[in-house]
Amino acid sequence: MALATLVHPTGYHVASWLHPQAQADASTSIEYYQRVAQTAERGLFDLFFIADTPAARTSNLTAFSRMPLFMNVFEPVTLLSALSGATRHIGLGGTASTSFSEPYNIARQFASLDHLSHGRAAWNVVTSANDFAAKNFGLDRLPAHGDRYARAREFVQVVRQLWDSWEDDAFIRDRAQGLFFDPAKQHAVAHEGAHFRVNGALNIARPPQGRPVIIQAGASDTGRELAAETAEVVFASESTIEDGIGFYRDLKGRMPRHGRDPDQLKVLAGLPVLVAASRQEAEDMHAELQALIHPDVGRSRLAMDLEADLSGLDLDQPIPEERIPKSANFHQAYFNHIVQMIRVEKLTLRQLYLRYERGNKTIRGTAREVADQMQAWFEAGACDGFMLMFNLLPRDMEAFVDLVVPELQRRGLMRSLYEGRTLRENLGLIRPPHPRAAG
Amino acid sequence: MALATLVHPTGYHVASWLHPQAQADASTSIEYYQRVAQTAERGLFDLFFIADTPAARTSNLTAFSRMPLFMNVFEPVTLLSALSGATRHIGLGGTASTSFSEPYNIARQFASLDHLSHGRAAWNVVTSANDFAAKNFGLDRLPAHGDRYARAREFVQVVRQLWDSWEDDAFIRDRAQGLFFDPAKQHAVAHEGAHFRVNGALNIARPPQGRPVIIQAGASDTGRELAAETAEVVFASESTIEDGIGFYRDLKGRMPRHGRDPDQLKVLAGLPVLVAASRQEAEDMHAELQALIHPDVGRSRLAMDLEADLSGLDLDQPIPEERIPKSANFHQAYFNHIVQMIRVEKLTLRQLYLRYERGNKTIRGTAREVADQMQAWFEAGACDGFMLMFNLLPRDMEAFVDLVVPELQRRGLMRSLYEGRTLRENLGLIRPPHPRAAG
Repeated sequence: MALATLVHPTGYHVASWLHPQAQADASTSIEYYQRVAQTAERGLFDLFFIADTPAARTSNLTAFSRMPLFMNVFEPVTLLSALSGATRHIGLGGTASTSFSEPYNIARQFASLDHLSHGRAAWNVVTSANDFAAKNFGLDRLPAHGDRYARAREFVQVVRQLWDSWEDDAFIRDRAQGLFFDPAKQHAVAHEGAHFRVNGALNIARPPQGRPVIIQAGASDTGRELAAETAEVVFASESTIEDGIGFYRDLKGRMPRHGRDPDQLKVLAGLPVLVAASRQEAEDMHAELQALIHPDVGRSRLAMDLEADLSGLDLDQPIPEERIPKSANFHQAYFNHIVQMIRVEKLTLRQLYLRYERGNKTIRGTAREVADQMQAWFEAGACDGFMLMFNLLPRDMEAFVDLVVPELQRRGLMRSLYEGRTLRENLGLIRPPHPRAAG
Repeated sequence: MALATLVHPTGYHVASWLHPQAQADASTSIEYYQRVAQTAERGLFDLFFIADTPAARTSNLTAFSRMPLFMNVFEPVTLLSALSGATRHIGLGGTASTSFSEPYNIARQFASLDHLSHGRAAWNVVTSANDFAAKNFGLDRLPAHGDRYARAREFVQVVRQLWDSWEDDAFIRDRAQGLFFDPAKQHAVAHEGAHFRVNGALNIARPPQGRPVIIQAGASDTGRELAAETAEVVFASESTIEDGIGFYRDLKGRMPRHGRDPDQLKVLAGLPVLVAASRQEAEDMHAELQALIHPDVGRSRLAMDLEADLSGLDLDQPIPEERIPKSANFHQAYFNHIVQMIRVEKLTLRQLYLRYERGNKTIRGTAREVADQMQAWFEAGACDGFMLMFNLLPRDMEAFVDLVVPELQRRGLMRSLYEGRTLRENLGLIRPPHPRAAG
């Protein structure tokens, strides 16, 4: 099974930075990130992944000053480039928005990262973050969902063409003939689309992986369709095995219509996980972090993902129906999850934010219990692997590597060493042949 | 005196890749760049610098296939980020165009590089490369010189404001109070200009240097004015001490009008240099590379910088006057230099391209001879230091570090160790105080 890990500086838990074991300045410490990436590599993970949004919040700062969330972080491409020298095997994936950058720049930076890392780059294609991001790039608000996805689709098409600007063996460096490259093996892009006009060739050789791995996480119908067409890794966020199977089948079922082999897309189920020597110890560690959540933080986090104003509400009452928006603009899956907890489970605001921090599928327990759950998901066909999220770093990742990885290896579910030379090889993804190459 | 080095993969000489001592795949080998950067650091250089253009040529490929020039190179920000972990002291400077990117992305990536490198980032502000770049970004051709500079000026203003999004001590990480930052110390940018609208805050703490160092190289009047207003390092390209003094005085003389202390801008004279045990050996090494230049390459290089069509001309005749354009669109200094060689020196096409490859001020000789020249420029007030360019890497840089650096140290012209912790400190540039900080 494939393993990725989503790395937030001090951990996935919103209160992790308050924990005595957290490194307070983690978010801008490269030495810290090196240690975490090396731990993930010790655990033979396929992918070290950095989420992103190109904005800091500038309103409601009193509440947000209690949470580090993306207010002070390394930019992903620079961070992953720096980490390429501190690791040798693990994939390096980062988010970059198609709404606020140019295809040539993104194609070039990820191609360069792929060369720097000898074939370990992955790009998580996102269409947006929030209105704060839009305002940093000349807009008043985020374009509509459909428009963002139309632009994203064209963006990815152009980026893939740019990665194919040169055939794999274009740079012959033939000193006898004095030829650095074979002119016949440049294939300039000539793209004239609704969102982009790009006429030229990338100024870097075809990446070691042919193309860096494309990641997506969109859960909407439009997002799934784009993923079925272009993604090679998808982060899923379903809470139950049944929902996971449904998502998995739906997504892979869409692929043949795009002429793709369903095996060439790996669905990684998001897995917040906390392992300890005993179940009770894991529960205690979880409770310790939950107790550190300030009510203002819980309320704001929920308001952000529900895209609602929750100010002034009693913490020990349910959220009134009139405060719930009709639909989500930013992240449909988060929204649906919260609305379900409000309507079906009738939770109070406090219960809701405490529950929401981890969701129903949080796995807390011993290595055997955690491995059991992972095995159940994997063997039921709910995923091809997991996107691991750790509450507190590096503590919880170290425990997972020391306790769960050996258990998965014993069960034959995980490698005992990196077999592949590139991220694609480790994930079992083919290296895309160049479209012009004889086949 | 300050020392920077402009690093082209196998060297500054257009035929360097053909030399038996060159590493053919240097341009996409991070291990190679690490070795070169570490050599520069052994030489106590202030700055390791990467030039750039966001385009590969897509026409006249038969001629261009004989020269590696920017056809297959790492993207600068990713390369410098990777090098930050392989070096400890040397500054890391890279080119990024204001014509083809967004201020938020550039501000963010260079701020991130500054954090990754603990205060060693520098940004070379350029307005353009060529029409090939324009076509990669939705345009048919490069905007006019004045328009590019107007955009560049506004771009730099916005980037500097974004770097000041947070006061230096904004991120207090106060666990007792549960406050990650002090909300009063965020100062969001509210910029509405002719070219950009940016309303928001950068999502990374103020860089270790306050602001990464700003480099420029524009030689035109508009370029000098922008440099006088915003640059902290300027690469100069004058060929004689007299011209160097003229440029130096002109540039520094413009600074007080912008309220700036002339000492806060370092003029680095471009210095192609080749040192050897004897003068004759240096001349032989030079001749060896010159002999490797293919006539098609010489002609194309010249045509590119003269912005002229030189096809069909006899190599052993002067360039006819009617082939010379009235003015330059891309790089005025190169253009002027070539035109002068045509009109004043009456060189043939072949003589011209052989001469142009190094120019009149190439320094070839022993360590003492090279140091004499550098000392003469420096003490005459023609520069604050040098931008070293080496014909063949790493050979010529190693010779400079082993032979010239000790000579300069003996003369008291160079440090014997890095005294500063940041690039600014090593260059003698102040750390800009935050505009809102009490002062």
